[in-house]
Amino acid sequence: MKKLINEPDAVVREALEGVEAAHGDKVRVSYDPYVVVRADAPVQGKVGIVSGGGSGHEPMHGGFVGRGMLDAACPGEVFTSPTPDQMLEATKAVDGGAGVLHIVKNYTGDVMNFEMAADLGKGEGIEVEAVVTNDDVAVQDSLYTAGRRGVGITVIAEKICGAAAEEGKSLAEVAELCRTVNAQGRSMGMALTPCVTPGSGEPSFELGDDEMEIGIGIHGEPGRFREPLASAAHVVDRLATAIVEDLPYESGDRVLAFVNGMGGTPLIELYIVYRELHRFLEGRGIAIDRRLIGNYITSLEMAGCSITLLRLDDELTRLWDAPADTPALRVC
Amino acid sequence: MKKLINEPDAVVREALEGVEAAHGDKVRVSYDPYVVVRADAPVQGKVGIVSGGGSGHEPMHGGFVGRGMLDAACPGEVFTSPTPDQMLEATKAVDGGAGVLHIVKNYTGDVMNFEMAADLGKGEGIEVEAVVTNDDVAVQDSLYTAGRRGVGITVIAEKICGAAAEEGKSLAEVAELCRTVNAQGRSMGMALTPCVTPGSGEPSFELGDDEMEIGIGIHGEPGRFREPLASAAHVVDRLATAIVEDLPYESGDRVLAFVNGMGGTPLIELYIVYRELHRFLEGRGIAIDRRLIGNYITSLEMAGCSITLLRLDDELTRLWDAPADTPALRVC
Repeated sequence: MKKLINEPDAVVREALEGVEAAHGDKVRVSYDPYVVVRADAPVQGKVGIVSGGGSGHEPMHGGFVGRGMLDAACPGEVFTSPTPDQMLEATKAVDGGAGVLHIVKNYTGDVMNFEMAADLGKGEGIEVEAVVTNDDVAVQDSLYTAGRRGVGITVIAEKICGAAAEEGKSLAEVAELCRTVNAQGRSMGMALTPCVTPGSGEPSFELGDDEMEIGIGIHGEPGRFREPLASAAHVVDRLATAIVEDLPYESGDRVLAFVNGMGGTPLIELYIVYRELHRFLEGRGIAIDRRLIGNYITSLEMAGCSITLLRLDDELTRLWDAPADTPALRVC
Repeated sequence: MKKLINEPDAVVREALEGVEAAHGDKVRVSYDPYVVVRADAPVQGKVGIVSGGGSGHEPMHGGFVGRGMLDAACPGEVFTSPTPDQMLEATKAVDGGAGVLHIVKNYTGDVMNFEMAADLGKGEGIEVEAVVTNDDVAVQDSLYTAGRRGVGITVIAEKICGAAAEEGKSLAEVAELCRTVNAQGRSMGMALTPCVTPGSGEPSFELGDDEMEIGIGIHGEPGRFREPLASAAHVVDRLATAIVEDLPYESGDRVLAFVNGMGGTPLIELYIVYRELHRFLEGRGIAIDRRLIGNYITSLEMAGCSITLLRLDDELTRLWDAPADTPALRVC
């Protein structure tokens, strides 16, 4: 295992200490339990937005805490759900009297623990709503999930809901917006290589030198199928066809296109993927109106990519364009 | 070779087409020869700033073209110097009558070709100055360079000089500032793994499963020495000791600390490296006043990191904080 770490057990804590040392102007970090909270939280009268999940997907979610996006993030151990007490602490820390939205990726552990935390929060008199994202078209059920997995749309939902909360929208409105984003969004990913978790020291799965895995989840869980290595154009055709035909996205639609690296993919390759996606969508009369290209929801050092589309309307576009100031995403 | 590409020969061109499709609001791209130019160039009365070098180091340099940073970038083929005609085209495209600064990393091919381009530019009546960066403390001479290599400080120089040019400083002033940044900056890098260029399909060097290379260059060229894998704390001690003792940086100094990923290193590891660097510098009485953490000057999918320090004064800090709007770096 080749990693820039100290003790495998200390990876999450030490990375959080790095985040705290680097971004103390934007966030504060608690360690017992782990919570990353916006520096000026709670913002009185504003809906608080909390997300969380296993670590190893950085910058998601801790990198998205800050003005215009998340109020708090709960990082679990690597590829492990955070616990209800983390989520409860986060909920209490960001409650400014207008209620708290939990944005939850559809993974069984995350959903269960966020449900428990919501109940505990309500028990303390905090209004809590939860929206579960499930944008991954690859598989219906999978290793860690009943139903579709929640993946790339979560990043976009955090940005758009964060902007709406900043404008003073109500909890019901922000939650409804989150459901809309999830409903208008679809994703699919693929891997060229597995990743190695610090705890196990072993590859998350085996893949031949001449193979790739299509429809992979963000923990290296199996996808739709394996096939021989092929061109970026072929990969994009595989992912984008499944995505476009699922919603479906249609000629005349305007979309936000999110080309995401899984952690170990060079940026030069992501731009080739973007080129292919642009051509693919253009061929179907779908216009890319906004885009995000880079490593935002990763699987440690896995090589591969995912594509997420969001069908835009004027309101979603306006909220996407609204200012955000987080460690990983800045909109001026 | 596992890469999200089409034809190996088409990697640079197709990635540029992706950049053009994605960022047409900020940049325009020419293909014969390859040049990425700020969309509104030339800006009349403003010093133009041009950089360039081999591709494979993305987002450097093309990702730094935009308001407040570079006016143009010349991408060579992967790990190959751009040609004088690219640099000349870039120089002509950004000349707004106030002259053009070439920021050149110290690699023999880059330096030679930029010199030729400067002569050609002068021949066309354009005032050109060049500053060569050479911040890498690892080795005196190396595979592709006489003297020290130019690495991470180049990113910082592009940001700071870009801000100064935007303010209307003269060519002589911007060039002097670039020399100051280079003089106050030092870097060193290391690798856990090699990378594979699309053209060769082969690893750039061989490294055992239990080894790491200290003092590596950004093309996988050899460093100071190889040693057994060790902790992030040990790695930071190796790099930061060499950097700090070289300038030297001293107790009471304020610095910009740049923790850079080589392309294949997960962000969670870069934050552990930042934690170690923060502790290391604190122990020597050196305060981190500004920081940059992420993949900015990469070697394709190489795993590893580099550290760059810049000694700050009020003027450098102010220029670092000035607005920039480029595909890869945004300061609000």
